Amino acid sequence: MTTRRNFLKASALLTAYSLIAPKSLFSQPIKASRQKNSPGSKLLQITFKPYEAKLIHPFTVSGYTRTTTPIVLTEVTYDGITGYGEASMPPYLGENIPSVMAFLEKVNLKQFHNPFELDDILTYVDSIAINNTAAKASVDIALHDLVGKLIGQPWHRIWGYTPSKAPVTTFTIGIDTEDVVKEKTKETTPYKVIKVKLGMDEATDKMMINAVRSVTDKPIRVDANQGWKDKHHALKMIEWLATKNVDFVEQPLPKHNLEDMAWVTERSPLPTIADESCQRLEDIPHLKGVFDGINIKLMKCTGLREANKMINMAQSFGMKLMIGCMTETSCAISAAAQLSPKMDFADLDGNLLIANDCFSGMKLTEGKITLTDDPGIGVRKI
Amino acid sequence: MTTRRNFLKASALLTAYSLIAPKSLFSQPIKASRQKNSPGSKLLQITFKPYEAKLIHPFTVSGYTRTTTPIVLTEVTYDGITGYGEASMPPYLGENIPSVMAFLEKVNLKQFHNPFELDDILTYVDSIAINNTAAKASVDIALHDLVGKLIGQPWHRIWGYTPSKAPVTTFTIGIDTEDVVKEKTKETTPYKVIKVKLGMDEATDKMMINAVRSVTDKPIRVDANQGWKDKHHALKMIEWLATKNVDFVEQPLPKHNLEDMAWVTERSPLPTIADESCQRLEDIPHLKGVFDGINIKLMKCTGLREANKMINMAQSFGMKLMIGCMTETSCAISAAAQLSPKMDFADLDGNLLIANDCFSGMKLTEGKITLTDDPGIGVRKI
Repeated sequence: MTTRRNFLKASALLTAYSLIAPKSLFSQPIKASRQKNSPGSKLLQITFKPYEAKLIHPFTVSGYTRTTTPIVLTEVTYDGITGYGEASMPPYLGENIPSVMAFLEKVNLKQFHNPFELDDILTYVDSIAINNTAAKASVDIALHDLVGKLIGQPWHRIWGYTPSKAPVTTFTIGIDTEDVVKEKTKETTPYKVIKVKLGMDEATDKMMINAVRSVTDKPIRVDANQGWKDKHHALKMIEWLATKNVDFVEQPLPKHNLEDMAWVTERSPLPTIADESCQRLEDIPHLKGVFDGINIKLMKCTGLREANKMINMAQSFGMKLMIGCMTETSCAISAAAQLSPKMDFADLDGNLLIANDCFSGMKLTEGKITLTDDPGIGVRKI
Repeated sequence: MTTRRNFLKASALLTAYSLIAPKSLFSQPIKASRQKNSPGSKLLQITFKPYEAKLIHPFTVSGYTRTTTPIVLTEVTYDGITGYGEASMPPYLGENIPSVMAFLEKVNLKQFHNPFELDDILTYVDSIAINNTAAKASVDIALHDLVGKLIGQPWHRIWGYTPSKAPVTTFTIGIDTEDVVKEKTKETTPYKVIKVKLGMDEATDKMMINAVRSVTDKPIRVDANQGWKDKHHALKMIEWLATKNVDFVEQPLPKHNLEDMAWVTERSPLPTIADESCQRLEDIPHLKGVFDGINIKLMKCTGLREANKMINMAQSFGMKLMIGCMTETSCAISAAAQLSPKMDFADLDGNLLIANDCFSGMKLTEGKITLTDDPGIGVRKI
């Protein structure tokens, strides 16, 4: 079993090398391999390979159903230590396996002789091309995992956060028929808060909430995913939701419609949270007074380093903080969990949707995120 | 010699205890002392004592001359490891020995069981009272020194900065007679850039610059210290300075006059840097478009943790970054130096003005800040 796993690992590594290795590496395959495992090698080496995350349940958004999510697993090795990272590419965000592989092929980490210099390294990675935020996040996460392991500390501790303050995570219920929604709600037993996807017509949205409410009175958090097109309708829906023990509403209106969004937030009885409207640090000043808070996702914002800057800026503006995710393995989920003590709300259930998670890491205790002393992002390959 | 130094240290410690120790500590002096040195003690203990920094040269600002600067030295001990911090209180900033001692007496670190939880600890320290930024900085610096030592790494590395990017520091020439200015300029040999204090009448200001220029053609950075009261005069002076190899002008106008300052910056041939106008993170959004950059000082902004947030916010606004100081020992100067790789400009000469520096730390190599592998803020008591 172990032998087979090692064989598979080795094959995957070879695949990764063959996809990315420049000619000079091919001419010295033994040296490259030795460098990877030797504690004496002081070169930053990056490898990566595609991975197909298989969804436990088919995922439906706006009439489109999928059963897998494309992922790229990234590793950065230095001095015999390996950091793990991941890019997750839900199809509606514009990145895919070829685009991530093409981006990562351009990443030349060998020019840096000190893995601790994350500021310069990640500034360089961000400068290689515009967008490609998930590809960039995979490098950011792997480098953070590596540096945390070199320091011997988990990142929540290096950042000075209080692990006991990590919040509960929601479990998400997608848009479905009344019976399925009721059934799924019954399966949310360990979770203290439920996230419900809305943004359809009024009848469907109300059916969704009523179906959940027929099963449980747990707090609900609503994600409208830009689905409401009119500010008056959005406000009317939020006012109705406010009577249903709903904590907040995420992204009620289309992402660029900030003027109407400010109108809604001013009148909303519930806090409003920006998701699609808030990708990166530079977006936040434009969202002050437009939303009450922001949803930070590593795959949107290029990773942990920028996420922390977003936390500080949003907090200084008095905005609420939420951490979210895509369908991700426990690698990226555990990285995001390191930030969770700073969050008012967490939606880190992406790894729970996958049948073939290839990492173990962040654990939930009765729905609450539990951080450990494991260094880096706190994951192990399985 | 060593014995005498130890005796002095012990006396100083006793003085510190006697000034701050609550009754329960006095009744258990031996236990308190043992806790300080025992590797097993997992209590955060804070001690502090006044220190009079003796200036090598009397310091004159606006007709007021002083020969000393009041300082409070702070120590935080945990598990046998001690972190060093410092509050420096130039008289014009509103803090003094009694105010800092009174503030530090209120700081109850024993409620925290984990020194790594800097975010919560420093949020608490900031919440004890408004203002008191130097007192707060002394705790922030001591805790950073402690945590860096517990992790075993210098902070420039923990933050991911590139030490080789640390800039040169300026050496400051105060307002004085033409002969003294010429003499002092001749003494700036190791420094690559000179900072000149202006903000008097036009004749004095021009005499100052001309006196420096009669000795050297090194770049000059000007600090007007709010001295110019009229925007037209400020712009005229800056236009003249632009012909004299001047890099930038700090705080031309009174700190609250942001409207006129924006007018000056829009027309200025030289970058403008906010000093008195920029104390803390919350000030920065108001300075966007008003100044080209900000001068961060630990004694203004409560310390390293907030300074890093200021760096990130100002950088995201495209503003230039400068790190400055008060008259400080090598303790606070070395702490500020940890941030210096992120800075466009540094003015960290405060320790060079003191005859009785009680720490060794940040060194200059031909005027350039040189960071070491020493953990924490990188200082040793002397």
